Amino acid sequence: MKIGILGSGMVAQIIGPKLLEEGDEVMISSRDITKEKRNFPSAKEWQIQQKNKGLNAHAGSFAEAAAFGDLVINCTSGAHSIEALTKAGKSNLRDKILLDLANPLDFSKGTPPSLTIANTNSLGEEIQKTFPDVKVVKTLNMINAEVMINPRGIDGEHDLFICGNDENAKSMIKNEILEKRFHWKNIIDLGDLSAARGMEAYLILWVRLMNKLGTAYFNIHIQKKKE
Amino acid sequence: MKIGILGSGMVAQIIGPKLLEEGDEVMISSRDITKEKRNFPSAKEWQIQQKNKGLNAHAGSFAEAAAFGDLVINCTSGAHSIEALTKAGKSNLRDKILLDLANPLDFSKGTPPSLTIANTNSLGEEIQKTFPDVKVVKTLNMINAEVMINPRGIDGEHDLFICGNDENAKSMIKNEILEKRFHWKNIIDLGDLSAARGMEAYLILWVRLMNKLGTAYFNIHIQKKKE
Repeated sequence: MKIGILGSGMVAQIIGPKLLEEGDEVMISSRDITKEKRNFPSAKEWQIQQKNKGLNAHAGSFAEAAAFGDLVINCTSGAHSIEALTKAGKSNLRDKILLDLANPLDFSKGTPPSLTIANTNSLGEEIQKTFPDVKVVKTLNMINAEVMINPRGIDGEHDLFICGNDENAKSMIKNEILEKRFHWKNIIDLGDLSAARGMEAYLILWVRLMNKLGTAYFNIHIQKKKE
Repeated sequence: MKIGILGSGMVAQIIGPKLLEEGDEVMISSRDITKEKRNFPSAKEWQIQQKNKGLNAHAGSFAEAAAFGDLVINCTSGAHSIEALTKAGKSNLRDKILLDLANPLDFSKGTPPSLTIANTNSLGEEIQKTFPDVKVVKTLNMINAEVMINPRGIDGEHDLFICGNDENAKSMIKNEILEKRFHWKNIIDLGDLSAARGMEAYLILWVRLMNKLGTAYFNIHIQKKKE
């Protein structure tokens, strides 16, 4: 599949290689593809590294990645996602499925972060409202990038959440990306995109847990009543 | 122990009897102790039922319950907790430990609810700010009342979160209430009271999960990286 990734930071550079390994053709993207990311090479340098491994990697602008992808994945930082998607362009995104895994974390007042959108709205819904012709599917936002692509790295059963307004788009993401490529087992469909409010609000707890546990490598499992 | 419970609704009428069984003397409270609650008897009627079982139960005003308790538990609905605590009175609460398990759920715009306080603040912190002489400990708010008093009713391992600014108050709640009386095993201390932001924000996800699972009888367990 041709997959356009908006962003070229940590999440893009962990998800991108996984999709390349799975046989996809991937373009990551950035405002400036020559600019180094914190602890990660520039998008251009990343492309060269992947090409040297014989993988089908590209680097481009947000608009180029959106035009390139049959599927588009939002890996930009959530506080700037609407801006990045606007640069990507409505016409390049039209009728496509957008996997949104971003969180609108606001670090402008230091840590712990708050959310730029919360409680009665969510980034997922705001993207859907701004780009009504895009099929937004929210998932993978409640875990760190390494867990996203390797759920089997976690001990025991644990759960992934998904929501979105378009049932076919959710099925496609669930089957093709989450199950087939990333090997997720327990996927809980929370319904329409307004469930993104809860999935994003959880990040406030997640950050606190990460600090307490001393690692971002964890996830939650729902435990039910004894039969 | 003498325990004053602010509130006489479902949570008060599930926690109260459990504490009575454990040998505590308990007063539940209400604006009007003769008023029936939805699906539950009035506070006065509850007292009579418990007395008939030979248990040491009382019913009174918020002020009477606060004055009565060596420990005070906030079981009022979160959107009205500050008002109830104000009625309870600063002098009656002074220097006491307040176990706050309320969530500031706002049903005024229907379901699913949002929160009246969120993101950059929390009910727990707002109570602490309004009543600086009270030792607020936030816990038990992320589960329904039956799970609070009977964690062993849930299948497998699952976790309880706690936070608060006073270490001794947290230890007392952890040892005396959560472990000794309610039999909790996995208790995760998230630090100072600002962790209540995440613990309360989780409710937005919790309500969505409850609707999806068709039951409020569940909890989460943190799963970590494989060794």
